[in-house]
Amino acid sequence: VFEVKWDAVSAEKGGYDHFMLKEIDEQPKALKDTLRGRIDEQNQKIKLEEVKLTAKELQDIQKIHIVACGTAYHAGLVGKYAIEQLVRIPVEVEVASEFRYRNPILNEKTLVMVISQSGETADTLAALRLGKAAGSRVAAITNVVGSSVSREADDVIYTWAGPEIAVASTKAYTTQLLAVYMFALYMAEIRQTISEQARIEIYQALQYIPEQAARILADKDHAKKVAQGLIDWNSAFFIGRGMDYTVALEGALKLKEISYIHAEAYAAGELKHGTIALIEEGIPVISLLTQPDVYEKTMSNVIEVKARDAKIIAVVNEGDVKSKDVADELIEIPKTHPILTPILSVIPLQLISYYASVLRGNDVDKPRNLAKSVTVE
Amino acid sequence: VFEVKWDAVSAEKGGYDHFMLKEIDEQPKALKDTLRGRIDEQNQKIKLEEVKLTAKELQDIQKIHIVACGTAYHAGLVGKYAIEQLVRIPVEVEVASEFRYRNPILNEKTLVMVISQSGETADTLAALRLGKAAGSRVAAITNVVGSSVSREADDVIYTWAGPEIAVASTKAYTTQLLAVYMFALYMAEIRQTISEQARIEIYQALQYIPEQAARILADKDHAKKVAQGLIDWNSAFFIGRGMDYTVALEGALKLKEISYIHAEAYAAGELKHGTIALIEEGIPVISLLTQPDVYEKTMSNVIEVKARDAKIIAVVNEGDVKSKDVADELIEIPKTHPILTPILSVIPLQLISYYASVLRGNDVDKPRNLAKSVTVE
Repeated sequence: VFEVKWDAVSAEKGGYDHFMLKEIDEQPKALKDTLRGRIDEQNQKIKLEEVKLTAKELQDIQKIHIVACGTAYHAGLVGKYAIEQLVRIPVEVEVASEFRYRNPILNEKTLVMVISQSGETADTLAALRLGKAAGSRVAAITNVVGSSVSREADDVIYTWAGPEIAVASTKAYTTQLLAVYMFALYMAEIRQTISEQARIEIYQALQYIPEQAARILADKDHAKKVAQGLIDWNSAFFIGRGMDYTVALEGALKLKEISYIHAEAYAAGELKHGTIALIEEGIPVISLLTQPDVYEKTMSNVIEVKARDAKIIAVVNEGDVKSKDVADELIEIPKTHPILTPILSVIPLQLISYYASVLRGNDVDKPRNLAKSVTVE
Repeated sequence: VFEVKWDAVSAEKGGYDHFMLKEIDEQPKALKDTLRGRIDEQNQKIKLEEVKLTAKELQDIQKIHIVACGTAYHAGLVGKYAIEQLVRIPVEVEVASEFRYRNPILNEKTLVMVISQSGETADTLAALRLGKAAGSRVAAITNVVGSSVSREADDVIYTWAGPEIAVASTKAYTTQLLAVYMFALYMAEIRQTISEQARIEIYQALQYIPEQAARILADKDHAKKVAQGLIDWNSAFFIGRGMDYTVALEGALKLKEISYIHAEAYAAGELKHGTIALIEEGIPVISLLTQPDVYEKTMSNVIEVKARDAKIIAVVNEGDVKSKDVADELIEIPKTHPILTPILSVIPLQLISYYASVLRGNDVDKPRNLAKSVTVE
């Protein structure tokens, strides 16, 4: 017997034109709910009481495979960065439909972590079972209590995003990010791979995230204006490096699935190896520039595409003076710890996609050809 | 002192309109040259006398990082499949501009393998140096004797493709594939992870590859006709699973960089998680269906996009009857061992890109915004 905690009322539109915008706006609450109960305030640590892996078992893990589809896969990419940097365990992230058919190298020292909002994604569930059959420990991040994934995984970290109705995932994604960060911090603490100072910095930055998300959501006019500039284009590009690249991928997917603009993300340093041939006058290039350690390198790529007359829409940290000269549109986000930035930097991209879809007259919540959860292969 | 074996004459167009088509046509010879001297006919084995890694050192490798940019990165993806399947060592493939800035986990049990046609790609060279600094063994696959990469790597496997002048890489790519296959077989033999029968099957299939490539090149009219059907589109998609997906990525990059059509590759199973929203009537979907173990799964994805009225251009093995009913255009390639198929299946895609570029009136050999080797970051 399992319990589903949602009711029909909480899933209503509540005055919004679309579930998607409602769900975007619910992110501060969803993030707060997902943090709640996992905070050890006194010791400024993350506690994950639901994780049954013992300290010894967490010590023994030599490799983590994160497996997911679509937006959840992009949360996995952030997970790779966070876990590799904080815990120094190699992490491989793979889309479930590829992972399950390629005879991956798994054993009992491997942790397979699946991410699925619905917990019913067919390929992801198959990946989970593959992991179990290989003797690997299997953890899951999911939003649905009692879902197949939650029942079959050894360990479950729930996102408390509440029901997500719109096909384009928003609050499920940002809470998935929170879940992977919390898991990375928890594991880093147990494996003692993080200094106390570094841990406390990230811990404290996490507490501000819900409120910072709310600040971004307080002004939607700029996103609407940027969307207006996109809708006449067939193509758009999203670029970034490192953490910013993972967000570029999610931004491109969001725009693609609801606006039907052919958006594609590129690691900024790869542009010169082919894709820059597509840059022509006025084409929108959404450039993520939030990561201090690769800022200068990404900026040099941005300047290159600008020199080919692309229109630069830059997502930067508040107070970034340098980008003002380069960007045609400047989107500022509140400053947080660099590793946590994806939770904030994706929000303007969600809004831009939403308005682009509305302005194009599309069915925002039910884009053509797509289903909310892909329960068949 | 090092020797550069090419002369000006061999680099001329020799009657061709463009270097690119000449280089596409040179692939049977380039492949034969790259195989030559690495064949132990008597024992039906690959010998790589240039590899100085001892058997003991090869035994000790616990992880391989393949690092490259652009087309060479796609060769690396094939390398991951081949090495993981034949040798069962985990392989991580990464674009050099990402790898070098993300503080990757490297140690003396790691082999860093870089792939660069020119041997001068700035980010790739930096990745090589990062590997050396971390105490990892560094191997290189390159086409240029005496290049920076060849001089700094511990081990070098040369591709003998001859000079490649066109910006869009063709014969360098297919010979890079050959190099990764030979390395995988060599390592599998030493680590005894392959049965004699399996080794001999692949060994024998390798011998036919140059001649099979020549057979594909004997008829270019079909590729020209397919290209004609692409050139009025702003977007095109390439889909496949496993090995076919890696070729889809290379096919999309090729089309993108010289035709300026926004081509994008997708793992076929991921389509339903967003990109299928972009499928509309008539849009070209180049579908790779050469891998027996995922054939049915990919076919079901192809049928889905066909149901949304996409135009299906299918690349299949000779004698594939099933795909005849689904494909609007059928491109057959000679049958080889499934693991080797990428060398053959990419050739029609190279031709299609070439003709699409010619028909669009582009500067085929020097596409806009691109340089042959990216020697700056």
